Amino acid sequence: MHVVVNAAMSADGKLSSHRREQIAISGEADFERVDRLRAASDAVVVGVGTVLADDPHLTVKGDDLRDQRRADGRSTNPARVVVDSSGRTPADAAILDDAAATYVCLSEAAPVDRRMTLADHAELVTAGEERVDLLRAFAALQDAGLERVMVEGGGELIFSLFEAGLVDELRVFVGPKIIGGRDAPTLADGEGFLAEFPTLELEEVDRLDDGVLLTWAVDER
Amino acid sequence: MHVVVNAAMSADGKLSSHRREQIAISGEADFERVDRLRAASDAVVVGVGTVLADDPHLTVKGDDLRDQRRADGRSTNPARVVVDSSGRTPADAAILDDAAATYVCLSEAAPVDRRMTLADHAELVTAGEERVDLLRAFAALQDAGLERVMVEGGGELIFSLFEAGLVDELRVFVGPKIIGGRDAPTLADGEGFLAEFPTLELEEVDRLDDGVLLTWAVDER
Ligand SMILES: NC(=O)c1ccc[n+]([C@@H]2O[C@H](COP(=O)([O-])OP(=O)(O)OC[C@H]3O[C@@H](n4cnc5c(N)ncnc54)[C@H](OP(=O)(O)O)[C@@H]3O)[C@@H](O)[C@H]2O)c1
Ligand SMILES: NC(=O)c1ccc[n+]([C@@H]2O[C@H](COP(=O)([O-])OP(=O)(O)OC[C@H]3O[C@@H](n4cnc5c(N)ncnc54)[C@H](OP(=O)(O)O)[C@@H]3O)[C@@H](O)[C@H]2O)c1
Repeated sequence: MHVVVNAAMSADGKLSSHRREQIAISGEADFERVDRLRAASDAVVVGVGTVLADDPHLTVKGDDLRDQRRADGRSTNPARVVVDSSGRTPADAAILDDAAATYVCLSEAAPVDRRMTLADHAELVTAGEERVDLLRAFAALQDAGLERVMVEGGGELIFSLFEAGLVDELRVFVGPKIIGGRDAPTLADGEGFLAEFPTLELEEVDRLDDGVLLTWAVDER
Repeated sequence: MHVVVNAAMSADGKLSSHRREQIAISGEADFERVDRLRAASDAVVVGVGTVLADDPHLTVKGDDLRDQRRADGRSTNPARVVVDSSGRTPADAAILDDAAATYVCLSEAAPVDRRMTLADHAELVTAGEERVDLLRAFAALQDAGLERVMVEGGGELIFSLFEAGLVDELRVFVGPKIIGGRDAPTLADGEGFLAEFPTLELEEVDRLDDGVLLTWAVDER
């Protein structure tokens, strides 16, 4: 499995405002880059915080990219994955529609009624007692044939993936804006590291739109 | 007055760990760049949070740079400025030693005993009732002849400076590390913007050490 984390942050490291409202950080060129990355992936993963905040669809937007996937004998869209310990994903979330396969990764703490509702729309993966155990959940996704995995956020999930040593590559668009806010979501939230910080190798630096795309490889831990 | 904010952040936008412990983010080349920027400045400004966390000295380290300043008829070091509403800067802080002139910007809320202690070591500037009024404090610094001002952090002060429209330029070294932490200091903390986000123009992108230096001009608001 190869895991790429992709996100757009402001020049001060924020993914959105402190009200968790989506802010336009990048532009058309970055949007198309993200669409190509999605099209090249087997699965696109987000945390339930992102589903509740943004209700993303996570499908491929470019017709050419969709056609190419079909021509390659693949599904039109990559699978969508939500990491959602207690099954808080709403039944009418865009991510649960029939545009693509969806996996909801739950913990054992997810109530039965939530499981039953979500099972109508998605494959359920259970891993972990209170919180989703990402190592086990990602192993289950791999067993389901999902090899090229793209993670689109948010900061809580991204931190846990780094903590679990699951991230191979980090692509961050840094945009020309200051969002500010000690409570605004950042690229990696969670508890934070105090030692053994994950280290990166800068692979590429590309100017894009009015910002810069940084491509980092993550060192083995 | 020309105000440059300079800081080093991790790839996820953090200035330090969530325990506010200093983390090595940049390397020797960035260190020398910062030293040159200090040497080219009339004043180096920090918030009292940074004084309490790191006890920085904020002097020019390079002998050649110090010699050059003297050769130019300037003081060996730029003036140091702390933004410190209630006078919490300890009397034995490195920033109060006699290596350079120091200004402590207080609010009217600073108790008399703190003022008396600090007046032994520094010039006092009073602006604002409860918190330092940055527009007025910086106007006073300008009246004192400080034209080229460098701000070294931290995130609370940087946010307020953006809010006050006082920042002309932002130079951020982005380092090859993930620090993480929803409570870790970021490049711009404070309350955060919800609209009228300060916008930037990307002036330069330079690889440096194992990271990248981004130089942004701040648009007029
Ligand atoms: N700019 C961008 O590129 C971008 C991309 C995505 C999101 N965003 C923004 O990011 C914000 C949402 O991010 P977020 O950090 O709040 O939420 P998130 O990372 O999307 O989701 C976090 C949630 O996932 C669940 N989870 C389950 N197991 C977990 C585990 N092992 N580790 C971590 N989380 C686990 C937790 O909820 P449970 O405990 O209920 O399971 C947790 O609160 C929104 O404001 C959105 O707009 C921006
Ligand atoms: N990586 C880097 O380049 C770098 C550089 C500097 C600092 N740091 C890190 O940043 C952390 C400290 O940053 P910080 O954000 O906590 O503190 P800070 O920005 O250095 O100082 C903030 C304090 O300044 C005072 N202040 C007075 N008037 C203000 C105003 N108008 N606006 C904002 N603040 C005002 C406030 O304390 P009062 O209310 O008491 O006045 C406020 O709490 C430390 O962990 C340090 O290691 C890193």
